[in-house]
Amino acid sequence: MKKWLIGVDLGGTTTKLAFINLDGEIVHKWEIPTDISDKGVYITENIAKAIKAKLDELGQTNANVVGVGMGAPGAVDENTGIIFEAVNLGWTNYPLQDKLSTATGLPVVIENDANMAALGEMWKGAGDGAKDLVCVTLGTGVGGGVIVNGNMVSGISGAAGEIGHMTSVVENGYACNCGKTGCLETVASATGIVRVAMEKIESNPTSSLKKILDETGSISAKDVVICAEAGDEYALSVLDQVCFYLGLTLANVANVLNPEKIVIGGGVSKAGDILLNNILKYFKKYAFIRVRESTSISIATLGNDAGAIGAAWLVKNKFMK
Amino acid sequence: MKKWLIGVDLGGTTTKLAFINLDGEIVHKWEIPTDISDKGVYITENIAKAIKAKLDELGQTNANVVGVGMGAPGAVDENTGIIFEAVNLGWTNYPLQDKLSTATGLPVVIENDANMAALGEMWKGAGDGAKDLVCVTLGTGVGGGVIVNGNMVSGISGAAGEIGHMTSVVENGYACNCGKTGCLETVASATGIVRVAMEKIESNPTSSLKKILDETGSISAKDVVICAEAGDEYALSVLDQVCFYLGLTLANVANVLNPEKIVIGGGVSKAGDILLNNILKYFKKYAFIRVRESTSISIATLGNDAGAIGAAWLVKNKFMK
Repeated sequence: MKKWLIGVDLGGTTTKLAFINLDGEIVHKWEIPTDISDKGVYITENIAKAIKAKLDELGQTNANVVGVGMGAPGAVDENTGIIFEAVNLGWTNYPLQDKLSTATGLPVVIENDANMAALGEMWKGAGDGAKDLVCVTLGTGVGGGVIVNGNMVSGISGAAGEIGHMTSVVENGYACNCGKTGCLETVASATGIVRVAMEKIESNPTSSLKKILDETGSISAKDVVICAEAGDEYALSVLDQVCFYLGLTLANVANVLNPEKIVIGGGVSKAGDILLNNILKYFKKYAFIRVRESTSISIATLGNDAGAIGAAWLVKNKFMK
Repeated sequence: MKKWLIGVDLGGTTTKLAFINLDGEIVHKWEIPTDISDKGVYITENIAKAIKAKLDELGQTNANVVGVGMGAPGAVDENTGIIFEAVNLGWTNYPLQDKLSTATGLPVVIENDANMAALGEMWKGAGDGAKDLVCVTLGTGVGGGVIVNGNMVSGISGAAGEIGHMTSVVENGYACNCGKTGCLETVASATGIVRVAMEKIESNPTSSLKKILDETGSISAKDVVICAEAGDEYALSVLDQVCFYLGLTLANVANVLNPEKIVIGGGVSKAGDILLNNILKYFKKYAFIRVRESTSISIATLGNDAGAIGAAWLVKNKFMK
């Protein structure tokens, strides 16, 4: 019996690859740089070469591999594996599944990267096997993945799970890259948190955040969290504001889906309890009572491996049924 | 082969019943009053008697019936058919499926009434067979039903689809019966529309709405729509406000699910185009661009029959597989 699933998490700068066994455990993982030159034409060939080289190194062949799953940063047609658009990679209507399958000689399945992370958390992470799960990824942007009855929800145009583009700030919101204003992403991504922090930083000259800004010329989302944990009042108020938007928006998601779990991942989620507890405060305020009592929120546990593990899950479920 | 599905839509004052063929066409429909005395203990027996009498009248027997589907006003455990709570009927943890099955001698399936209406619209109404569908019912309250991949989404505690309890008014919202404030229901149900209209009616003495209030002692949601259609400025501003909340909230639902269709039903939906066009104006403003381009909104077409037809669909899909 074939024993390995290959999970790939394609990012704008780095591509993460992993050989994963049928129980979802990582056997081997490594990274390669993503070459986005010439509108990303080298990406699939580079991945295929990296897989071949690693299989050779470990004395294995394609014969031992079920298939390749890859999460990509953009909207995906789940039936064809075509990427509608991946701005950072220069792809529009790109037949990623076919290209990668030809290059590797293996069956390939493609999904949006946030969705893959959601599947990974469902299988081996904080989702803990829950079949109704919502994942939200707080990183440079805010991504989301929705799983209902154990299946990814893609939507009619591959745009389901765009939690980062739910409107959280109805009036006078910041402009978002997507063309709207007031999206959750504008206030809850790493960039968004800095934006909220910068807004009144000049009126808070005694805050440690202002000191960091004066000394280093900039502040980061991590600075906000560290200063908040140290009790800095302004940093606490910034975090409270961010968590208000997150709690409100996630409550509205939960009022629609009443999932078993909401899992919060991405770099910002490393803030841990101080983030989670503040989100919960507002989540409980804005969630319908039955939802509040039954939908739980937790921090993701798989970190950077979630995407590859989710991709492996999809390979297993698509090609081994 | 058995030829009839029985659809029942249980309401607080009236129970609608229908014999429906396997193509979803109503063969026979009628209503009985809902006897909610003594905490609703007579409800299932009365329904069983009504079905038996009608079958006798038409010269038919249970042998020709696949089963009974019933929509009930409350949260339902989809596996057991137990009603967690139906405030208007006096039920708490009520084993509705077992009671009705014993009384009728037929297989029974129970769902929340808004969900049944959603299934009905999917099968034979405005959903037009779409497998990813969200229905919102604007009546005395605001209900919702979510269908993904052709299946009802119930959530971990039967509370999925509570679109009426999404928080639409974040600050200074009205108190909702559910215990929260600012729920969509407080501003977009028939009662909610009147509430919005009453808010500034005294500052608009020349509005036709004020005249109706002075002459009859009250106004209705229908009055708001009729006056708006006649060009009354204040009525138009009230409708605009209501549609702003609806458009914003439905855009946020669509940003999560990117359904093929959103169907708006319930008494308020009889307002038709003036309601739909105003909702669309705000929906397009707050929906993510791919969602805006792919998710459509339309008015329900089955009216009061949606619940019974959806119940019949569930019978067909549960007991004829």
